[in-house]
Amino acid sequence: MPGLAPGIFLSIGAAMSSSISPLAPTDVPDMPAIAGVRLATAEAGIRYKGRTDVLLAVMDQGTAVAGVFTKSKCASAPVEWCRKLLKGGKARALVVNSGNANAFTGKTGKQSTALTAAIAAKAVGCKASEVFLASTGVIGEPLDATKFDGVLGALAERAEGEGWMGAAKAIMTTDTFPKVATRTVKLGKAKVTISGMAKGAGMIMPDMATMLSFVFTDAPLAPAALQALLKSGVEDTFNAVTIDGDTSTSDTLLAFATGAAAERGAPKISRASDPRLKAFGKAFVAVLADLAEQVARDGEGARKLVEIIVEGAVSKASARKIAMSIANSPLVKTAIAGEDANWGRVVMAVGKAGEPADRDKLSIAFNGIRVATRGARDPSYSETEVSEAMTQPKIQIKVSLGLGKGRDRVLTCDLTKEYVTINGDYRS
Amino acid sequence: MPGLAPGIFLSIGAAMSSSISPLAPTDVPDMPAIAGVRLATAEAGIRYKGRTDVLLAVMDQGTAVAGVFTKSKCASAPVEWCRKLLKGGKARALVVNSGNANAFTGKTGKQSTALTAAIAAKAVGCKASEVFLASTGVIGEPLDATKFDGVLGALAERAEGEGWMGAAKAIMTTDTFPKVATRTVKLGKAKVTISGMAKGAGMIMPDMATMLSFVFTDAPLAPAALQALLKSGVEDTFNAVTIDGDTSTSDTLLAFATGAAAERGAPKISRASDPRLKAFGKAFVAVLADLAEQVARDGEGARKLVEIIVEGAVSKASARKIAMSIANSPLVKTAIAGEDANWGRVVMAVGKAGEPADRDKLSIAFNGIRVATRGARDPSYSETEVSEAMTQPKIQIKVSLGLGKGRDRVLTCDLTKEYVTINGDYRS
Repeated sequence: MPGLAPGIFLSIGAAMSSSISPLAPTDVPDMPAIAGVRLATAEAGIRYKGRTDVLLAVMDQGTAVAGVFTKSKCASAPVEWCRKLLKGGKARALVVNSGNANAFTGKTGKQSTALTAAIAAKAVGCKASEVFLASTGVIGEPLDATKFDGVLGALAERAEGEGWMGAAKAIMTTDTFPKVATRTVKLGKAKVTISGMAKGAGMIMPDMATMLSFVFTDAPLAPAALQALLKSGVEDTFNAVTIDGDTSTSDTLLAFATGAAAERGAPKISRASDPRLKAFGKAFVAVLADLAEQVARDGEGARKLVEIIVEGAVSKASARKIAMSIANSPLVKTAIAGEDANWGRVVMAVGKAGEPADRDKLSIAFNGIRVATRGARDPSYSETEVSEAMTQPKIQIKVSLGLGKGRDRVLTCDLTKEYVTINGDYRS
Repeated sequence: MPGLAPGIFLSIGAAMSSSISPLAPTDVPDMPAIAGVRLATAEAGIRYKGRTDVLLAVMDQGTAVAGVFTKSKCASAPVEWCRKLLKGGKARALVVNSGNANAFTGKTGKQSTALTAAIAAKAVGCKASEVFLASTGVIGEPLDATKFDGVLGALAERAEGEGWMGAAKAIMTTDTFPKVATRTVKLGKAKVTISGMAKGAGMIMPDMATMLSFVFTDAPLAPAALQALLKSGVEDTFNAVTIDGDTSTSDTLLAFATGAAAERGAPKISRASDPRLKAFGKAFVAVLADLAEQVARDGEGARKLVEIIVEGAVSKASARKIAMSIANSPLVKTAIAGEDANWGRVVMAVGKAGEPADRDKLSIAFNGIRVATRGARDPSYSETEVSEAMTQPKIQIKVSLGLGKGRDRVLTCDLTKEYVTINGDYRS
């Protein structure tokens, strides 16, 4: 790759991912338009050739915004930009590009976010402080924001309510399929819609947020209510997914509520605790969970979706730590790739988590087949049965600690040679 | 593999590792006999065929013992056995077997350790409470200690001062080469020797101890002095090595001091702070460091030895956490396997460590070539030069945080397809 600086790719993407993950969802939902949201994509030539790499979402006036972001100490310039803007609580535009993360780019990175926002503000007819930004791709390469000049103006003109799959495609990097989800639910007497998109597919262990994901609704929610919903919603969805234990510099999850459904009688909601928000809240979390599972299904090199359930822990937090210890163990993940119900490695991962665990109370099951009980191998389990179960594309590992009522669930995928190929051999 | 229960292999070892790690040391030290220590090995048929799998070390009366062990909450039966015995401070025998870890084996495991110690005690002519044990291999399989009956008696008879390489071989699992190290140093006016052995090669992120390692000396050290030396010695040696971030249930490091050198005038040392112990202490840590580096050099599938230095952190502990975050990142490790100086991923790993770091003060160098400085790509670095450097078998990543004086060093290896093969495909 002449002309490219070394060592600075998060993932270079789409070109590499020739085949779609075997874990991709088989039915893609119809994505209805959301009143107050218009989308358009283009090829800005940020890095990739022959594919779209920029998404503009234009929102009507009065749109509330909420967000959660990476906890990385080396957060990207767009993450810092969004964090600052979030206090305003209002959004008119979202610009997302793939191919360059604008991370670890120093002052240039900050200037680049300001310039992108200015170009978008002019195109949309709003303030720069109402333009949210997200970037994914190469770390450490300056992002040339002048490439957006002209492009965003044209996008603003042709943005429309449809085009969700196109939008989800434009933000992909090593993802092998676009990720969208939608739910329709009643708020008061009005039907409202919640639709979102996400990208993966490596450097995934979100911490308070995730890779990139954007969720839109026409429900009239105040920023504080939307923020509260989002913050609690990510806990068991995006924050419960890990591909490789590596947390990105760019994790961004933004939610936008246009409020357009107010015209159709949806009540205006100012607090997340409003009882009228119950069904909406459930649907909102369902969209997040759907997208998060799709991220796990598209983990780099993934051939198995792995669900880890830890129960009987002293607390939910303790269960989460143990589940993550299992989910991030290379030895557990390679065993699953080899279709080996290697519960000895699960014991190891429980042991290293540092959380309360009593070996002699521990039970482990793979896809419902108990292989270990009370600190030793289950004498009654059948090797043939468990080997058969391990050939399934979805593997559930359930660990029962027998100590308390703490329970948690985490999604991950297996660790295959393909992961090493994607991340190690791509320059050859 | 008919007749074998599934899912319970730590590593099944030697048979799999057909080729010696390219990172193996090229010169193997002469291992002198240590007065008061006799060794012998045998094929007990624990699991492997056609190779030795049991080591007996017999120590003279008056031998002091010290030990550090895994912090796993699911520690193996031999680890629990040794922890209990350590209070006595005296050892006469050490029995180590490979092929079965005697971990997660419930009451059977405890009975098995007691029986092994009883057989060894009878063979050696000592108390069972003076017999230390270590096991490595399969997790969850009952260890049939009756296999030691007869074997240990014969071993006690033919044990001798030589045979260190044979001993190091008998304790191997997926290791591709035996690991020994030795230093000779003056204690008072007498020459004393420190010799040790270790095994790796997967499930390696020791926490207060390591995989299996045994160090012997003829120096007359009291148990408390030996324990203090050992505890501080592991901190920057075994505890600073990680292969895959997975901590074993069986990590055991035992040190034995026979005191035989007292006859030749070596002073009896009762406290680690004794100034006469200075040179000895350095040599002792050098043996630990030598063995620990060999473990990293024999990491499963390793093709590169990776040294990570973090400096300018707010403390040594903070530097350690950041260094471990880099060392355990699958994305950093696969990039090194691909000979890619991917400093963007190093930035990511620094960011996710959660320790104080200021992006705009961060510098990164690969093998002495600075690629990033003050929060952005070093404008002057040459891609050709750094690409050439990445082809070396040893890669040093140096991260300068620019915040304080905290410095630390961690050893690891790259993550290759071979690691996935060893740990995922071995049953096919």
